[in-house]
Amino acid sequence: MFKAELTDAKLLKSSIDAISNMIDEAGVTVNKEGIRLKAMDPAHVALVDFELKNDVFDEFNVDDPVVLGLDLDRLDTILKRAGTSDRIVLELDEEDNVLNIKFKNSSTRRFSLPLIEVVGEEINVPSFDFPARVEISPSLVSEGIKDAEIVSDHVIFKIDENDLYIIAKGDLGNVEVRISRDEAIALEVKNTCQSMYSIEYLKDMIKASDIANSIKIHLGENIPVKMDFLGPSARLSFLLAPRVESE
Amino acid sequence: MFKAELTDAKLLKSSIDAISNMIDEAGVTVNKEGIRLKAMDPAHVALVDFELKNDVFDEFNVDDPVVLGLDLDRLDTILKRAGTSDRIVLELDEEDNVLNIKFKNSSTRRFSLPLIEVVGEEINVPSFDFPARVEISPSLVSEGIKDAEIVSDHVIFKIDENDLYIIAKGDLGNVEVRISRDEAIALEVKNTCQSMYSIEYLKDMIKASDIANSIKIHLGENIPVKMDFLGPSARLSFLLAPRVESE
Amino acid sequence: MFKAELTDAKLLKSSIDAISNMIDEAGVTVNKEGIRLKAMDPAHVALVDFELKNDVFDEFNVDDPVVLGLDLDRLDTILKRAGTSDRIVLELDEEDNVLNIKFKNSSTRRFSLPLIEVVGEEINVPSFDFPARVEISPSLVSEGIKDAEIVSDHVIFKIDENDLYIIAKGDLGNVEVRISRDEAIALEVKNTCQSMYSIEYLKDMIKASDIANSIKIHLGENIPVKMDFLGPSARLSFLLAPRVESE
Repeated sequence: MFKAELTDAKLLKSSIDAISNMIDEAGVTVNKEGIRLKAMDPAHVALVDFELKNDVFDEFNVDDPVVLGLDLDRLDTILKRAGTSDRIVLELDEEDNVLNIKFKNSSTRRFSLPLIEVVGEEINVPSFDFPARVEISPSLVSEGIKDAEIVSDHVIFKIDENDLYIIAKGDLGNVEVRISRDEAIALEVKNTCQSMYSIEYLKDMIKASDIANSIKIHLGENIPVKMDFLGPSARLSFLLAPRVESE
Repeated sequence: MFKAELTDAKLLKSSIDAISNMIDEAGVTVNKEGIRLKAMDPAHVALVDFELKNDVFDEFNVDDPVVLGLDLDRLDTILKRAGTSDRIVLELDEEDNVLNIKFKNSSTRRFSLPLIEVVGEEINVPSFDFPARVEISPSLVSEGIKDAEIVSDHVIFKIDENDLYIIAKGDLGNVEVRISRDEAIALEVKNTCQSMYSIEYLKDMIKASDIANSIKIHLGENIPVKMDFLGPSARLSFLLAPRVESE
Repeated sequence: MFKAELTDAKLLKSSIDAISNMIDEAGVTVNKEGIRLKAMDPAHVALVDFELKNDVFDEFNVDDPVVLGLDLDRLDTILKRAGTSDRIVLELDEEDNVLNIKFKNSSTRRFSLPLIEVVGEEINVPSFDFPARVEISPSLVSEGIKDAEIVSDHVIFKIDENDLYIIAKGDLGNVEVRISRDEAIALEVKNTCQSMYSIEYLKDMIKASDIANSIKIHLGENIPVKMDFLGPSARLSFLLAPRVESE
């Protein structure tokens, strides 16, 4: 048995929208603590760790822990139909093996999403010793990535004790976005470092901006970047592998 | 001789927009009572009956009744150019065999639409003894149809004495939208009934929502649905044939 | 050495957007008076003359006059990234042979645009003795052109002492937009005249509407049309060759 009710439709919509562009199917674990989705993209470049604590929900009832195999594209299509003032009810129908998703407002709209078999080992989120960390407004990052995109399909994040740089180089010109310590919410740097990442992945990740007022970016030298979108009782973390610089 | 002037551009724009997606050409009858367009779509699945009474117009002059053969796509393209505060003047030019359509505002813009020959028998709108009728807000229907569309290209309207249901079933999941008696403006049901319809047609029909505050839907068991968009002195009715359920 | 700073991003964005649709590459002359771009489109149908006087800029420093060879499409792509409240800084980097374009706001975003070799003779803007001139709101012209476009790909500008007409004729109907002397800011006509022009070019030109409150249109009988978009300390002029009427 699992049933949960949520007033803030946006939290679930934006998170699944960001995740479903990278990951097609996932096993979502539901237990008394809440909902958790850990998955890698098919190319094994990005890892997603999404957590909604039970107290995000107005109502949250689950007996035994259960893993729901979900087609995230289908789930995204359904959640896109939710209006901003709709209440969302999630309810597992074990008999028919579907997840019922209801939007309650002046009408009641019920979508039943068939559960799928998800094969896959348990995913352990690797931990890194990040020498640098910056917390900034999501819009600064998303604008910087869009700037970089006009000359390249990959981008360098470079950080020193004063500034975060978003850098792209291409045949048609170079782009350098500088976000100074003063513009950041927090900036902690043990040593200057930089790594290169795929813009395609970053653009999907940044779609989660709606759910949080700030992003925490953890950086190192040629290691994955970790991006945390933190809201009250919700967390969406991405770990994205670096690209090896060919020059 | 025919000349008419209209302040409310939206009424004509929205009606022709909805109709022209289904019907390419039609003979529009103009007489002292007003304007009337009755036509079937080429596949003979939907029938349109559109009526603008003379008192919708600020000025309405016609001598002998006349049938204007109109290319509705062209008419729609022209009406889309009307601004919200434009006055629309329709004037038949018998010499050049065109309908002149003027938009008056700070400039005067005149479009001349060549009349076409329309072959076609007189259309008699068949009448049905509908056992159920519901009057609701257009947005409830249009949202329900968009919901249904994510899993199927056809939809079941089902009605009982308490609720209208919009139901769709597909390989990728099911959708059920329930609009209760409390949410409806009126709901009269002699006996429970249901029929299935093409979403493609319903989506075109629902474009007429702008012209009316409510839709009257007339339903029966495996018979056509009749949808009336009623405004003061304007009426746009659609009759849509059911699809035969293959299951 | 050249460095200039501008608060009004829109002026530069809209001008380059209009120009870059017609002209791919151009040599832009920078001297103490300001910035000037004169160029013909590859088909030699339209001539652009764009001038930003030095006092448009908050800061404007240049030593010796210099001609910057610019890929206007790339420049347009970069300028599209400017936010409405960004300050724009243009700076020539002679060593790297690039034009640096900075957008300053909460972050500092620097785009470096490689300079290109521009071959091309000095362009002399031919002068015509226009027998008619009208000054009107840009929106009246742009709406008239969009109206004309639904029946044709070329348009006739016709002017007499009372009215400017925008006329298009096609198999699918005719369009005639009349803008009377009362709706114009100014209208001076020595003798009635008309010429035909390509809508494709006019649509690009009219994109410059943002930079000016009015357009001055200079007309004659089967000669080019001159359109001036005039703002304080900025001027964007187009000269467009007529199409020969085939009828």
